[in-house]
Parts: sequence; C-alpha cells; structure tokens
Amino acid sequence: MTELFDRRDANVIMDRCDELAAYTSLPDGIERVYLSPEHARVNALADGWMREVGMDTWQDAAGNQCGRLEGRVPGLPALLVASHLDTVPGAGRYDGILGVLSAIAVVGRLTAGELPFAVEVVAFGDEEGTRFGTTLLGSRALAGQWNPEWTELTDHTGETLWDAAIGFGLDPSRIADAARDPATLVGYLEAHIEQGPRLESAGRALGVVTSIAAARRLSITLVGEARHCATPWELRHDALLGASEAIVAIERIARANGSPATVGHIRVEPDAVNVIPGLAEFSLDLRDESAEGRDATWALILTDLERIADARGLTLEVTETHSAPAVHCATELRDDIRAGIIATGDEHPLELFSIAGHDAMAVAAITDVAMLFVRCRGGISHHADESVLVEDVALAVDALHAAVLATAARHS
Amino acid sequence: MTELFDRRDANVIMDRCDELAAYTSLPDGIERVYLSPEHARVNALADGWMREVGMDTWQDAAGNQCGRLEGRVPGLPALLVASHLDTVPGAGRYDGILGVLSAIAVVGRLTAGELPFAVEVVAFGDEEGTRFGTTLLGSRALAGQWNPEWTELTDHTGETLWDAAIGFGLDPSRIADAARDPATLVGYLEAHIEQGPRLESAGRALGVVTSIAAARRLSITLVGEARHCATPWELRHDALLGASEAIVAIERIARANGSPATVGHIRVEPDAVNVIPGLAEFSLDLRDESAEGRDATWALILTDLERIADARGLTLEVTETHSAPAVHCATELRDDIRAGIIATGDEHPLELFSIAGHDAMAVAAITDVAMLFVRCRGGISHHADESVLVEDVALAVDALHAAVLATAARHS
Repeated sequence: MTELFDRRDANVIMDRCDELAAYTSLPDGIERVYLSPEHARVNALADGWMREVGMDTWQDAAGNQCGRLEGRVPGLPALLVASHLDTVPGAGRYDGILGVLSAIAVVGRLTAGELPFAVEVVAFGDEEGTRFGTTLLGSRALAGQWNPEWTELTDHTGETLWDAAIGFGLDPSRIADAARDPATLVGYLEAHIEQGPRLESAGRALGVVTSIAAARRLSITLVGEARHCATPWELRHDALLGASEAIVAIERIARANGSPATVGHIRVEPDAVNVIPGLAEFSLDLRDESAEGRDATWALILTDLERIADARGLTLEVTETHSAPAVHCATELRDDIRAGIIATGDEHPLELFSIAGHDAMAVAAITDVAMLFVRCRGGISHHADESVLVEDVALAVDALHAAVLATAARHS
Repeated sequence: MTELFDRRDANVIMDRCDELAAYTSLPDGIERVYLSPEHARVNALADGWMREVGMDTWQDAAGNQCGRLEGRVPGLPALLVASHLDTVPGAGRYDGILGVLSAIAVVGRLTAGELPFAVEVVAFGDEEGTRFGTTLLGSRALAGQWNPEWTELTDHTGETLWDAAIGFGLDPSRIADAARDPATLVGYLEAHIEQGPRLESAGRALGVVTSIAAARRLSITLVGEARHCATPWELRHDALLGASEAIVAIERIARANGSPATVGHIRVEPDAVNVIPGLAEFSLDLRDESAEGRDATWALILTDLERIADARGLTLEVTETHSAPAVHCATELRDDIRAGIIATGDEHPLELFSIAGHDAMAVAAITDVAMLFVRCRGGISHHADESVLVEDVALAVDALHAAVLATAARHS
C-alpha cells in the first residue's frame, strides 16, 4: 500500500459519490428510496463496479445488490462488507454510500483465492426507511427477519411495497428468500460516516464503534381540556403547556444522563389560535450506549412527566412505538477494526458508540458485526452539507482493508 | 313584572335555545356557520319570533336577521339590542343565541310607540368566524366596516364567500349596504354568557361589562437547524426546545401580569420522529383589559423570547396577525345596564371586563355599546357542556328590559 495508491482509490470513491448523487427523485437535492427507479439504476452501477474488481454479482430477493469474491476454495463462508445506497430526502452524498464504495475498493485490493473466506459486498436497498416508514428493510431481509406483512406498507402516494416490488422486478411473495444462512457467514464489517462530531473534536479521521445505541421511541400524549381562551388561568388544563414543560424537562434529564434524546414531532388538538389545546401528542426518540442507561433515563423522564401532568390536571398516556437493545460490536471483529486503524498510523484509535442506527444492527441477528466510523464535517448528516475529506476516505479504505486482513489472519 | 311572567319568558328562551340547537351541520354536536342552510333556517325562525312580538322584520344585505319596533313616532333612531346566531364547531346552546332571544323577549314586554326611540333586534350571522376564518363579519358589515375583499375568503371546502352569499340569496357585491348610518342609532346593548367563571365564583347571576379586552394575535417562529437525532447536545439548535421554553415563559409572564394568553397552535418542521426540529411556529393570543396592559405584557414576553432564541442559537420572527384595542363600554349605557341589574335585586352589580370578543366590538365603531354578562356553569363555553340556569335567564331578561327602560328615561 503506497500513499499514491490509497489516494487513487479515495479519489475514485469521491467521484462515485458525486456520480450516485445524480440518481435522485428530487429536482433539487438527493432522495433515493427503496424499490424506486433510482434504486434500480444505482444497483446497476454498483453491479458494474463490483464486476470491475472481479466479483460475481447478483441482486438478492429483497433488491439488495451483492457481489462475491471467492476465498481459497469456492463456496467458503463469507465475510460481509456492506452498507446502504438508499437515502433520506435532502440527503448528503456519503451516508451509507461511502461504506459500499469503500467495501468495493477493498475488494479491488484483494485477489480471488487470497483469503481463508469469501468476501461479499452488500449494497442494501433500504436502511433509512424513507419510503415505507419502516427502516432496515434490506438488511432485515438478509438477516432472516423479513415480515411478510411489510408488503402491505404504503408509500406517501398510497403504493404498496407489494406493487413497488413487482415494479422493481422482484417477486414480493419471495422477499424473505434474501435471508442468509448464518453458517455461510464469517462476520460483518461496515464503514460509515460518524454522523456526529466526536472524531472531529478529537482530531481523528477514524474510530472504532463499540456498540450501536439502544433506542426507544415513544409517543407521549397529554390530555387536558379544550377551552375558550377566555378561560382564567386557574381553570385551565392546557395540554400544550404540559407538553412544553415536558420537552424542556426531557432535555435537562437526558442531557444530564448522557442519553441523546429528541422530540421531533408534536401536534395539538384542536390546534386553533383561540382555543386552549385539549390534547398534545409528541414523540420521544431516546438513545443510550446501553439499554440500561437508556431505561434509567426514561424512568427519570417518566417520573417528571407524571409530576407535570399531575400539577396541571392532565392525563398522561405513553405508547412505545419502537424499542431496540444496544447492539454490541463483537470483540474480535472490533479488534480487527482497531488493528486496521492502527495500521493507518493512529496508534490509539478512538472508541465510540453509534447514536444512529445502522444495517449492522439488523445483521447482528445472524452474525458478528463491527463498524468503522469515518470523520465527517461538523457532525452534519442527512443534509446536503454532509462532507468528508478525501484524505479520511483514503485512510478508511486502508483501515478497512487492513481489518479484513486481520480477520483473515485470525481465520488462518 | 311578576315572578311568574319572568319565568315564562325564560322558559320560552330555554326551549328556543334547544330548538335552535337542532339546526346544525354536524351529525353529533352543534355547528352553524355563516351563509349556510342552517343560517337561513334559524333566520327564518327568528323572523317568526320577532313578528310574534310585533316587530317589522327583514334580513339585511349581510344576512343578519333584523326586527324593529317603532318608538313614539315612526322613523326614530333605534336602540339596537343584539347578539349572534352562528356558532363554532361543537358549540353550546347559549353563546350569542341567549342574547338574541333575550332581546326578542324584552321587545315582547314593550309596546310599539312606548319608547322615545325605536328598538331593533339584530341576530348577527357571523361573529365566530368559523366558516371563513375572519370573525365578526355580520356586525362589521352593519358597522360599515365591510371589506369587499372578504368575498374572496374561502371555507374549508374551497367555496368562496362570494358564492356562498349567492347561494344564500344575497348579492355579494352589495353586502356593504348592510352598513347603518350612525345618525339612525341610539346605542347598542348586548346580553351574553360570560364564558368565564367570575360571576359564578362571586355568586352573582349577572354582571356589568366594563370593556372588551384588547387583543393581539401573533405568529412566532423560531428557526434553528434540522439535524439528525445523533447530533450531540452542544451542536443542536432545536427550534421546538426554544418554542417549549417560550410557551412556558409566556404563561409565567402573562399570568403574573394578569393578561390572558393562549398558545393554541404549534407546528414544527420537518416534524419527523428522528430529526431535530429546524423550525417551530406557534400562535399567541394575548389579551388584557387595556391595550397598554396588553402591550406591557407583550414587551416582557418579547424580551424573554429574544433571550431564549439567543441562548439556543435560534432566529426569532414575530408577525402580528391581528390587533384590536380594548373597546370601552359607554358610561351612560353601562350605567343603564347597572340600573337594570339593580332592578333585579342585586344592589352592587359586579363589574368585569370581557376577555372574549363580541359583536359589540364591531358596533362600537358607529355607536355607544354596553353589555350584560350572564353567569354560565364552570366558565365553560364553545363546548357542548355550556350551561346556564333558567333562573339566571329570567333575571337577564328582567335586567335587559330594565336597562332599556333606563336608557329610555335618559332620552325622554
């Protein structure tokens, strides 16, 4: 590995990130969703790039684009190196995409028959859940967690996933066939932009992911009384005032406990300028490095919500809409990632947990996973301003390559 | 006036309130909006009731139902006694309606030729603004404040006021003809339920209104940055957190200053569970007995909004959507209302200002106004639970009658 060689791979990756950005359903910005025409086009591009580096390629039953480089003998279990090609609306150019292209670049540095396992690159078709509101559809299909009822999910135009799959050329009754047999897998590696500022703050290009945050999503409803705005203060049961106090309390408690928390959605009823809100409903996305930490924070928040509701004569209803345990990166694969980063000259790689979810969460159901984080500017993600340095991309490819070799050394 | 006679009028009024409640566009609840089929039907009913008590009747160019009882000689200026027959959605049976029916009952106790002025009852067709989003359309037309552009207002189905007026049998190009010449008016009296609990708390059936609150409506927007929920606390510019702090601060400040304030509407962008809100926009309805008090409270609120926006790195935009000065009830007419209440046996009538807006606000542009408040249960209004005592209605009719006679005495 020479400096010159590294930069060349990174330049190709940056060019391809720009090229993929043109496959969008938005006139002004990037949006590329599952089973869309853009999805088909980027799969075809990725297919070509995979074949260029000597891989056998196919699209699986869920629309994930796959490529395989055989190991010492054909048919060996495979190390998956993967990420996703779909995006949120108004996305940047690197979230997911950088991981797929880095994986292809790493395979470009390998030779068929070189390793004690096959290497497969997977470009997942749905991680963000933009189109059907349910995330990780591609990686959950691969992980044998496809729910046949998901074919009834509809997009914002009312089209079902079933019909979209047919339009894409898939058999919607057979998406579950994308499931991989754990016995055919060695493990799973994923490179991804950090989507946070910790590497940048620490002056590091790369980091080892320890775990993917435990997350809970809750829908919180406060019910008071919708009354005319002439109602005096002492007779009011204002649901929005309760919600406002609650949202401020959530920040205070979650911040003190180091659990990222976001209230991204709120609505009130009747939502009229001159009527005291009788109902306020808001979302809470609560994360933490561990499920225990997350649940301890939630317990404190819930106590405060109950206090606020009591003080204002409101009723409180809490519905959990999603819960995911923390996914811990496997010790050995994590050590391989660390060894990969050390090989780039960073002797004490930063360890950090991922606040955002990733395909690795789904794949952890069937094989060991580990992740490499790449610094991004200002922690900005899910935004056109998403930015990475070409130098960091070069280091990421080097580290991911070295990590694959470290895994191979363990399997020899 | 005998006790028996009074109760009979009140019983008729209560029965008619129930009868009018059946004219609704909702299958389950009361909603009766301007220029609707229900509006036409209740106008026809009121027309009959007005004729029963000897009035000449007509519907004016704005769809307000009117009746006139001549004074000592035909053609004298008129004392208007009025309120409205339209309702909000999910309304009660008394808001506005009680004032119209009490006025008709008072005329039933008068004789043509008895007073030194004519008495006219007006049943306004739009006070609430439910259909077209703009309030007091009926009373503003009568007060010569009709804006021809209002014919372009649309209801929730997209129908214009212009088309609705034609459907109602009006000439939409001539609604402004409903304007009354101030020279033809003696003054304006209105009985109305309090829509608040002050009379009930004080154990009084009736009250003298001193003024109608000065009101301002503002649209307040905080703009931060929409970011992925993995963004650490220190990099967040969360518009909803700013709005939540602001809403709590508004309550604290407005309450301390005795200015009723309501935040009834809020929305955030992008309104996604896992994205930090980049924009929060909410309404503020701020009232006070005087414009000075209202504006002093607003100045304190604005200072706090700026502090909150600064602290969170948000930008603040404030747009005033409505501003109305306090309408002071005319001293002499107010004294007539007080005399009317005293005549019912309450020697020291409670004086209070109206937090809610009323038709009297619009009519004050062309003649003196005064109002009589009637106790309602629990201060509840704009709700099916709106409730008045038949005994209080009997007292209200007595007081309104006595007030008209007091005004007559001053004009003799």
